[in-house]
Amino acid sequence: MDASIMDGKTMKCGSCAGIKTVKNPISLARCIMEKTPHIMMIGDGAELLAKQNGLEIVENSHFDTEYRLEQLLNAQKSSKMGTVGAVALDRFGNVAAATSTGGMTNKLCGRVGDSPIIGAGTYANRNVAISCTGHGEQFIRNVVAYDLACIMEYKEVDLKKASELEIQKMKKNDVKGGYVAVSKEGEVVMPFNTSGMARGWITESQIHTAIYPSEEGNIKSIAQKQ
Amino acid sequence: MDASIMDGKTMKCGSCAGIKTVKNPISLARCIMEKTPHIMMIGDGAELLAKQNGLEIVENSHFDTEYRLEQLLNAQKSSKMGTVGAVALDRFGNVAAATSTGGMTNKLCGRVGDSPIIGAGTYANRNVAISCTGHGEQFIRNVVAYDLACIMEYKEVDLKKASELEIQKMKKNDVKGGYVAVSKEGEVVMPFNTSGMARGWITESQIHTAIYPSEEGNIKSIAQKQ
Repeated sequence: MDASIMDGKTMKCGSCAGIKTVKNPISLARCIMEKTPHIMMIGDGAELLAKQNGLEIVENSHFDTEYRLEQLLNAQKSSKMGTVGAVALDRFGNVAAATSTGGMTNKLCGRVGDSPIIGAGTYANRNVAISCTGHGEQFIRNVVAYDLACIMEYKEVDLKKASELEIQKMKKNDVKGGYVAVSKEGEVVMPFNTSGMARGWITESQIHTAIYPSEEGNIKSIAQKQ
Repeated sequence: MDASIMDGKTMKCGSCAGIKTVKNPISLARCIMEKTPHIMMIGDGAELLAKQNGLEIVENSHFDTEYRLEQLLNAQKSSKMGTVGAVALDRFGNVAAATSTGGMTNKLCGRVGDSPIIGAGTYANRNVAISCTGHGEQFIRNVVAYDLACIMEYKEVDLKKASELEIQKMKKNDVKGGYVAVSKEGEVVMPFNTSGMARGWITESQIHTAIYPSEEGNIKSIAQKQ
């Protein structure tokens, strides 16, 4: 399992890869960000740090489920991914991004995808936070998360316009997948070029969820605080 | 040890991290690029691939030298890096980049720096190839190699101009180190903001080497082919 996290305000980030026994790899990514001078840690060294910092450790078999076994058997015919990403905006206009994955099903042992790579699967700065999902190798090669941030910065366009350009570029470069992103102004984009991408967004008053393209999705109201 | 390589023409790339027994990690990065569908591989899985592909394997103690021990003892007082990078341009205007490192001396076990990260320590596309060296965490956070490529692409400037902007940005963001880069037009830049950066460049007729800033360096002529 691999994960990464980045705080756009401070540009601090943390990332881990090749994790087998830490229950929540994203907590380890945060621990690396907050408690070490480093950004990326892998394998045994990363697991040791998790133990030293009291993170929950489980047997690797904890992650074996019938569903995952079935996925593996299916994946031996076609390729599948399983990644969870999130971006957030606070009331002060600060953004942050986080991404976590079990990795590509049926991958070679030791393979690392884009999820723990700052710039590829996750990025945040003072303008925007991005978390990607899809065919990891293509996201690494095209540095997709940071590319979106660069289009905004260097072409001086807003997130919606930058995202249109990014999606064109992904199509041209055969990058299959999508991303969630939020700008400091509160613009939200969640584009993808696969058949579906399970996604949700939450505002002060509503929770939205959707899977397929052009879908309005489900909307649930949240009780307002008094 | 960590390494990465990228071919600008095809955008193919390979990378390995947490390597202990492969004599030349850069050869493993190339093997991953050429012989797997993946880009980044780490730890035991990466070492297994190296063995399966007949790369030279050595005992980890092969890399223990008195010089490195002395470095470690010194590094327990201050921080030191040891990275080798190269960029190349062929006669057809194709560029490529490669970076290899033993990592930061006195780092936490499992720490990965920018050298194996496509976008941070190494990048190449149809326009430019870049290899970075310096304080890895700052290069990851600022995605320095890809940032330089983005400035060229989105601001539509040449490598020299883009490099001036990158160096200003590195100064602003406290990124200590430097890089070597070559454009498809044959422009070469090798800026750094540390006290020195051992560097060399070779043309059809000459070899240049230098260490300190503003240094002309040594020039050695090469016999021309008839």
